[in-house]
Amino acid sequence: MRRIKLTVAYDGTAYCGWQIQPNGITVEEVLNRALSRLTGEEIHVTGASRTDAGVHARGNVAVFDTASAIPSERLAYAVNPFLPEDIVVVKSEEVPAEWHPRYQNSVKTYEYHILNREMPDPLRRRDSWHVSFPLDLDKMRAAAVHLVGEHDFRSFCSIHTGAKTTVRTICSLDIEKSEDLITIRISGNGFLYNMVRIIAGTLTEVGRGFRTPEEVNDILDAGARKQAGATAPPQGLVLAGIEYEQ
Amino acid sequence: MRRIKLTVAYDGTAYCGWQIQPNGITVEEVLNRALSRLTGEEIHVTGASRTDAGVHARGNVAVFDTASAIPSERLAYAVNPFLPEDIVVVKSEEVPAEWHPRYQNSVKTYEYHILNREMPDPLRRRDSWHVSFPLDLDKMRAAAVHLVGEHDFRSFCSIHTGAKTTVRTICSLDIEKSEDLITIRISGNGFLYNMVRIIAGTLTEVGRGFRTPEEVNDILDAGARKQAGATAPPQGLVLAGIEYEQ
Repeated sequence: MRRIKLTVAYDGTAYCGWQIQPNGITVEEVLNRALSRLTGEEIHVTGASRTDAGVHARGNVAVFDTASAIPSERLAYAVNPFLPEDIVVVKSEEVPAEWHPRYQNSVKTYEYHILNREMPDPLRRRDSWHVSFPLDLDKMRAAAVHLVGEHDFRSFCSIHTGAKTTVRTICSLDIEKSEDLITIRISGNGFLYNMVRIIAGTLTEVGRGFRTPEEVNDILDAGARKQAGATAPPQGLVLAGIEYEQ
Repeated sequence: MRRIKLTVAYDGTAYCGWQIQPNGITVEEVLNRALSRLTGEEIHVTGASRTDAGVHARGNVAVFDTASAIPSERLAYAVNPFLPEDIVVVKSEEVPAEWHPRYQNSVKTYEYHILNREMPDPLRRRDSWHVSFPLDLDKMRAAAVHLVGEHDFRSFCSIHTGAKTTVRTICSLDIEKSEDLITIRISGNGFLYNMVRIIAGTLTEVGRGFRTPEEVNDILDAGARKQAGATAPPQGLVLAGIEYEQ
């Protein structure tokens, strides 16, 4: 048996998120089915990040164990014909048998895309949040500074969370604009449930002038979800990648 | 009665092109229906560019006549709620009663997007052509130079064309790359049937090394469709905009 690490990209539009659930089709389920058909084994992958319904990925990570004779690096090429076109395994490689995608240090990078113009763009409707009001990027950047570093992000976490601690470290939080598209890029050692979307929603309220950049400190201090801004919609979010410590 | 010019954006994935036809739903038909519902009149738009099935637009142009009391500039906002989310009227304005979107000088700009990396990207599958082989951009640019200016583009035109002359002028043809995405941007005073897609397909064959940049001259001289490259697939093409002379 070998343990294989997969890097997985998907358009989350059609899926009820990553994790298998009774009420709809998920990325994990489709991946299990494709790998099982390919190998003739009963495959159950273990994912790094349980992305929400409608959220995308360019680099989610999953592992599975197999006795298949297919060379590790070729598994990506071999499984893609068994997958629908909205899920692609972009890389496969062998890892040690004890390697687990969630139980070791990593830095995850998410991107949140905001289309900031008056009219929607039908070609960006599936991978961005359309905000028709002007956003002040300088204010958003000033607010973002307060979020970088180690903080208790309890205010930026949906109440359904089961996390033991709500302390997380954001390594970087950059906001760029290219034509009409704003990209909020956040890297950190872990994210609470809905954390990136609540940060995106809060920064957008700062950008509209509903809150000052300094209020972000008060929100952090309050430790209460209702102090932060609205949860930005899922289609703007993409899990860009996960870097593991060697 | 006023004549209204609309600037129309659409994701062409779900449509059998712009022009009304018996065998499938088209952008023109959906737009007619929405405008008719909005105004209570029987509206038939006249489009500038009859984009093919699966081709997108950020700035196609259409006109229609109406006695509606809705202010010209507000019509875009008023009609969008009657449209599906893959079609958006981004602008509306009054034009003279004799103004016709096809019978006057204009410069059209098309973009053709190629995702040039080994693995496909599920988030770009609807608006780019995935080419997994390395492409030499310098060679593609060297080939593109030969296409700029006034030429007989008979070789770059599908045989089904009904055009009186196959002479056209390409004002500019730029090729840019941003990360994995190559954008071929072509502006000209008019394009023959499938012309941009055949140019994109031919430049890609040059980029792969199957043809030299100089062969583009021979293709132009031959005046025969079979001398040019394959027609690139529709989903990579977007009509970026149309500029009319004042």
